Amino acid sequence: MALIVQKYGGTSVGTIERIENVAEKVSRTRDAGNSVVVVVSAMSGETNRLLDLARGIDQNPTQREMDVLVSTGEQVTIALLSMALTKRGCPARSYTGGQVKILTDSAHTKARILDIETERMRADLDAGRVLVVAGFQGVDEGGNITTLGRGGSDTTAVALAAALKADECQIYTDVDGVYTTDPRVVSEARRLDRITFEEMLEMASLGSKVLQIRSVEFAGKYNVPLRVLSSFEEGPGTLITYEEEDQAMEQPEISGIAFNRDEAKLTITGVPDRPGVAYKILGPIGESNIEVDMIVQNVGADDTTDFTFTVHRNDYEKALGLLERTAADLGARSVSGDKKIAKISLVGVGMRSHAGIASRMFECLAKEGINIQMISTSEIKISVVIDEKYLELGVRALHSGFGLEGAQEETISS
Amino acid sequence: MALIVQKYGGTSVGTIERIENVAEKVSRTRDAGNSVVVVVSAMSGETNRLLDLARGIDQNPTQREMDVLVSTGEQVTIALLSMALTKRGCPARSYTGGQVKILTDSAHTKARILDIETERMRADLDAGRVLVVAGFQGVDEGGNITTLGRGGSDTTAVALAAALKADECQIYTDVDGVYTTDPRVVSEARRLDRITFEEMLEMASLGSKVLQIRSVEFAGKYNVPLRVLSSFEEGPGTLITYEEEDQAMEQPEISGIAFNRDEAKLTITGVPDRPGVAYKILGPIGESNIEVDMIVQNVGADDTTDFTFTVHRNDYEKALGLLERTAADLGARSVSGDKKIAKISLVGVGMRSHAGIASRMFECLAKEGINIQMISTSEIKISVVIDEKYLELGVRALHSGFGLEGAQEETISS
Repeated sequence: MALIVQKYGGTSVGTIERIENVAEKVSRTRDAGNSVVVVVSAMSGETNRLLDLARGIDQNPTQREMDVLVSTGEQVTIALLSMALTKRGCPARSYTGGQVKILTDSAHTKARILDIETERMRADLDAGRVLVVAGFQGVDEGGNITTLGRGGSDTTAVALAAALKADECQIYTDVDGVYTTDPRVVSEARRLDRITFEEMLEMASLGSKVLQIRSVEFAGKYNVPLRVLSSFEEGPGTLITYEEEDQAMEQPEISGIAFNRDEAKLTITGVPDRPGVAYKILGPIGESNIEVDMIVQNVGADDTTDFTFTVHRNDYEKALGLLERTAADLGARSVSGDKKIAKISLVGVGMRSHAGIASRMFECLAKEGINIQMISTSEIKISVVIDEKYLELGVRALHSGFGLEGAQEETISS
Repeated sequence: MALIVQKYGGTSVGTIERIENVAEKVSRTRDAGNSVVVVVSAMSGETNRLLDLARGIDQNPTQREMDVLVSTGEQVTIALLSMALTKRGCPARSYTGGQVKILTDSAHTKARILDIETERMRADLDAGRVLVVAGFQGVDEGGNITTLGRGGSDTTAVALAAALKADECQIYTDVDGVYTTDPRVVSEARRLDRITFEEMLEMASLGSKVLQIRSVEFAGKYNVPLRVLSSFEEGPGTLITYEEEDQAMEQPEISGIAFNRDEAKLTITGVPDRPGVAYKILGPIGESNIEVDMIVQNVGADDTTDFTFTVHRNDYEKALGLLERTAADLGARSVSGDKKIAKISLVGVGMRSHAGIASRMFECLAKEGINIQMISTSEIKISVVIDEKYLELGVRALHSGFGLEGAQEETISS
């Protein structure tokens, strides 16, 4: 008998009909002989309704009371889902974060989980009950209600799975798994049966927003097998785990292609090539809370250097102003920028043991006449920046060039 | 410095604007040098919205989960009111029933309060904070959320006032106090400055639905001075206390006139006058969970007796059917009934020391040509049943006959 933690987000429990649908899925999982803990979010729209009420009173309401307010959203869902389960003859009991209890620090609206008491949950599970737990919330040492911040229900599910040593943590979403790339761009994109935590983190941070990064990190840290599935369709979804020894040998080189078009590029040329120059350029950017993603530095002629980096497009104008001031200070030759860029990344743990991925990537893009403006690599990722208008073409060429449509044999997930 | 418990019902906190209005009142009470504990209900309409969600899943949902669900209504209000107070520079902190904690038995949806922890509240009050407590809810020994049933917020307020030994428990409603009778029937009806717990109980149970009976009983039991005031208008309201020794002498004979028209009368005549006959008649009625209000028995001629009683109009047909069966068993002469009756009651603790109230009452009604069908008396109440069509006429005649328009000097409540 396996212990499964299932998490259903706001869209999955957005109406009474959908809550009934969730009850059906939970009930079937239990009937198959499993112990089940369910974590739910607020019904979609409910959190915004509550936030609107608060803003009607104060644009910056006290955070302790914000947590008291918004935590009611999940409390409504746990009660309704428990009713729907009980109606089906499936014994169930709801728990708020405080009742479990999920102990957090006192950082209201963005609290972190410190500890989870499992004794009471164990007793319920031993008695054959399904536990329905409110996601996204906890309680601090003083008994004050806290919330984990937006998207925190995924974290609750993973933390419960870790505390209970669950066999699997299943995250139900509106997609049926993690894909080799965005199916809206490449129609041949294929659902992955498996992906490693590291790959998932690279995919997620690059814009494949299937899971909250924090919950993936958490699952990786505590080695909780994580599965992404659809609330609305049947299917095995995608299992996120550490690579197993015997699988590492036959790991595909590339698992997926991530991309985004929300960055902008800034270049400063003819900077005197002295120690500390990188700090002088990026210091003011960082102090203005602008996040820098890729950084490339080339040595130029006559003891000067060229320096290029990317920021979020929303920060482009601000960063350009700062950079122009720095250029004047340093006596640099010129400052330029470009908002119409896109980043494409190949991600795969197989990359570690296979040489030549980078050159094949560049070849693929060259064949399509796509010029590469920047390159950056990590152990399991290669990213390039290209002209935004070639994004779709580039992603499709790479997807096909690395045989992602069907190279990997489909394996049935258990 | 006085300790005041204030309770605001659903209508008083029904919109953001009204919550701001409540914050204003609470803030002023604190600024006047008082310690304040506020008890609030769910925003009007919210409880019904939640009940509709539950009914969408199950017509008879599990009661434990009903409590988890509906208790979110008050939790939303405590958060919003605390925000509104904090915005005004009035330090405030919200508490759910479980956080206080208000310990109840485990009778979900109709729990009774067993104990209230005051330590944490005292610390907040000592620190100058206003406490905003969710009405209507508590927590049982096992940490499960319970609710006190509809109208339970009044009970929460009184119980908190008793536990904290508050100087006054103020119940804010949509009326500005307790009246000598219903102002919709008698335009000269006058707000009472004071009324005793006993009188209030008689008035409340007779249809003056200003306060929940249970909360009045509770306040009387723990001797908590209770004040009824309007959320929307300024004014001293009506103070409900025990009569004080020095006041008893000048107590008015009659404090108010209560009435209702939701009863029906049933009569069985020519019943053999034997011991146990009353039980034989009323036994089947009680077993069918029909509540009997007034009972009158007259000895008739030839060793038989006539027996009349009243029930709620909704139970009339059912009671009549039962009575006809009993009549056949007992060999009674006839069974008759009347749904078009009304009951009028004079209420007043002064009645104890003044003879002749009853005869003056009958004289008043006789002058208007109103026939009295039944009479029943208690220590502080005389009730008569008359033809429904004379109800308004009778109430007005009595209100004027006993000088209720202005006989009592207005005293300024402190």
